[in-house]
Amino acid sequence: MTDLLHRDPQVIAAGIELLATAAEHQAARLSRVDWRPPMPGTEADLAAVMADTRRVAGNAEAMRRMLAIRPQLVDVVPAADALALQSGEFLHAGPPIDWDRASGPLRGALVGAAAFEGLVEQPDEALTLFASGRFALDSCHHRHAVGPMAGVLSRSMWVFVVQDPATGARAYCSLNEGLGRVLRYGAYGADVLDRLHWMADVLGSVLQTAVRKSGPIDLAAILAQMLQMGDEAHNRNRAGTLLLLRQLIPALVDSGQPSSVVADAVRFIGGNDHFFLNLAMPACKLALDAAREIDGATMVVAMARNGTDFGIQVSGTGEAWFTAPALVPEGLYLGSYRPADANPDIGDSAITETAGLGGFAMAAAPAIVRFVGGTVADAMTTTKRMYEITLGEHPVFTIPELDFRGCPCGIDVTSVVRTGILPQINTGIAGRVAGTGQVGAGLVTPPAAVFPAALRQLAERARASGTMAG
Amino acid sequence: MTDLLHRDPQVIAAGIELLATAAEHQAARLSRVDWRPPMPGTEADLAAVMADTRRVAGNAEAMRRMLAIRPQLVDVVPAADALALQSGEFLHAGPPIDWDRASGPLRGALVGAAAFEGLVEQPDEALTLFASGRFALDSCHHRHAVGPMAGVLSRSMWVFVVQDPATGARAYCSLNEGLGRVLRYGAYGADVLDRLHWMADVLGSVLQTAVRKSGPIDLAAILAQMLQMGDEAHNRNRAGTLLLLRQLIPALVDSGQPSSVVADAVRFIGGNDHFFLNLAMPACKLALDAAREIDGATMVVAMARNGTDFGIQVSGTGEAWFTAPALVPEGLYLGSYRPADANPDIGDSAITETAGLGGFAMAAAPAIVRFVGGTVADAMTTTKRMYEITLGEHPVFTIPELDFRGCPCGIDVTSVVRTGILPQINTGIAGRVAGTGQVGAGLVTPPAAVFPAALRQLAERARASGTMAG
Repeated sequence: MTDLLHRDPQVIAAGIELLATAAEHQAARLSRVDWRPPMPGTEADLAAVMADTRRVAGNAEAMRRMLAIRPQLVDVVPAADALALQSGEFLHAGPPIDWDRASGPLRGALVGAAAFEGLVEQPDEALTLFASGRFALDSCHHRHAVGPMAGVLSRSMWVFVVQDPATGARAYCSLNEGLGRVLRYGAYGADVLDRLHWMADVLGSVLQTAVRKSGPIDLAAILAQMLQMGDEAHNRNRAGTLLLLRQLIPALVDSGQPSSVVADAVRFIGGNDHFFLNLAMPACKLALDAAREIDGATMVVAMARNGTDFGIQVSGTGEAWFTAPALVPEGLYLGSYRPADANPDIGDSAITETAGLGGFAMAAAPAIVRFVGGTVADAMTTTKRMYEITLGEHPVFTIPELDFRGCPCGIDVTSVVRTGILPQINTGIAGRVAGTGQVGAGLVTPPAAVFPAALRQLAERARASGTMAG
Repeated sequence: MTDLLHRDPQVIAAGIELLATAAEHQAARLSRVDWRPPMPGTEADLAAVMADTRRVAGNAEAMRRMLAIRPQLVDVVPAADALALQSGEFLHAGPPIDWDRASGPLRGALVGAAAFEGLVEQPDEALTLFASGRFALDSCHHRHAVGPMAGVLSRSMWVFVVQDPATGARAYCSLNEGLGRVLRYGAYGADVLDRLHWMADVLGSVLQTAVRKSGPIDLAAILAQMLQMGDEAHNRNRAGTLLLLRQLIPALVDSGQPSSVVADAVRFIGGNDHFFLNLAMPACKLALDAAREIDGATMVVAMARNGTDFGIQVSGTGEAWFTAPALVPEGLYLGSYRPADANPDIGDSAITETAGLGGFAMAAAPAIVRFVGGTVADAMTTTKRMYEITLGEHPVFTIPELDFRGCPCGIDVTSVVRTGILPQINTGIAGRVAGTGQVGAGLVTPPAAVFPAALRQLAERARASGTMAG
């Protein structure tokens, strides 16, 4: 102690700037460390999980499996065929939820889907049928599917079939309807249902013919190119949509369909800059599904919201959902809509962030700040911050603006809990009243509580398995 | 003097770092100014031109006229119709040049064009006809046209017609053939001629039908979007090509042409990421032509190369070309090609830089460094440096990476001479031997000498006009 007092102090300041500045004012030699305390009450669970001897290898295996997937668009088929959906059965985005807790936009999409299926004459007639439990609800994720926003899928809707050629594993997603007043944002007017009928009666089979004629379309190659073209594959899919269109057009033209039908389909796809989102999502879902069910792995394999709850699933905890109330995004509003009109965060589209795209790849898409808010500098900082909570960098999805560094991917529950840094999500904003549609787009994070909850179960499993070091 | 020695020195250091550092080591208060001496021997001309009372208003008018142009693709027609080209008459890129001084790739493209026109059986037979002066050569720029690389246009080739709706002014450019072994890079094999025949016999009229059916296509809107999608519209036109395709496809599909013909045309356009370059160029040409012939204006209205000479034209000096030997680009080479295989800089495509795109907009296209060389940081620095030699910032062409700052545009001869900063050009590299084709892509500048030469004539005109202040 005496000796300490006689030497020049060397101060390492971790976290509290006030103390660092005070030391600096006394001319102490100072090193700053960007350290934050772990989330409160997580110390014991963190220690248990960090000591799990399966963790490092498990996460490496999760990353290896995720990165080995080569998502290809191989077919377009009715949901009834692909997902064995029955009449009166509806899938939705996010973790499982009952009608009584469902948010406005999810209810709006469900009653619209019931009318679209012809189960009721008018959407409102479906309210009591859902409330009474006559119609069945389940999570898209439970059928290898994902859906943006409300994410409602019923049997007559068509879905993209995305497949990994090596394993034959598949993932599914609906066809994108465009922006504004659309079912996935909770709108269910006659215009919405008319569009859905045209998509089911015409667009689906036109796309099926074209995809079957063109052969598998390499979605990883398109995603990689998009990042070189200012898309982050969640709220910007402009380049992706054009790249898809380029690949499909020769087969569309040669499809044998009447030219007016082909022209309509091309106008619809080309007129919707978000069309490719519904392919980016199942591509990410397919990669992440491959990383499920690895003992000891702390990697997040799904982040999803149903408009009420935000849920995550983790590789080392099987099918369990860790949920907490979804937050309301902050962002830019369309027309006269205001924050008070916004529903809490909704949709399976956060699967893109889970795979290292979307908010994690914002540095590749500086123009997106005009759609979701914030500054270009924020976008750069966001991507850089995500490296602190991820297990690796994507070898194929690279960011020119960061000298072609790979996207941060593989969200690590322990890193999130240790640093308090939450995953950044870009998202659309649905109106909270059923029937409204889209009101804006913005930025959101998961509720922090889902990560300590997941950590708790990882710790319990580690303790139960007897695989803890020391 | 005595007083000076008693006060604290305040040093302003302009240009020489050694002196600045020395002063700093003596604890002098120091302000650094990024100053360079003007180009040698230009002091008197600079003084004359800077004193020309017409200069400021002239440049403002040049900028106003350039920025008022709204380039639209309005038609696709044979060059014979659009440019009144006669049999045996050939246009080429860059300032005027005779056959005896023409470079390998320009000669290759000319003999290929003669064979394509059926004026000779084999390309080589055209050599003596060009050498003897039987065939006439002129600069594309003299006919309101531009051509990439060799830029050779003959009467049976089809051209894009780009028009400003307000003034009716027009500019023209050939259709892009793709990369590699193509006429504009000096290749003239059977494959090259076959492609040119298909373009003349099929592609031209398919595009004509589609453009006439779709109505005018707003090229400024596409260019603005491209910059948000990683293109700089010279060596990256990937997004531009896709955006064009999206607009043309409904009309192509509905054109009444056989579906196999439409599919071939779509595959050709979609398979060539540079297709839009030949629309970016005449869009820039049209805007810059509007800024010509303004007394006192020191704005560059054309930069162009014929493979031997690099030439510029300036608003205040009429039709005069100021030329010097073209430099050889530095860059990345295809396959086994090496710098020794490169021809000096060639093509009218530097019209994009003249309008604030290409090398001036590299910050918007970080991925381009994989094609032309350099680092992402270089690309950012290059764009920022170009603001030092330009008159303004483009209100429509903005760069997300620079927080949506407008592209630097309107190259000012006086600023180039005063700072010694040369315009940065991204370019393809042609093989120097006729018949080779493309060997690489890279970066180049004009030879410095063209700017003092232009300044000299601006000064002479200022002196002659009696419009010098003081």
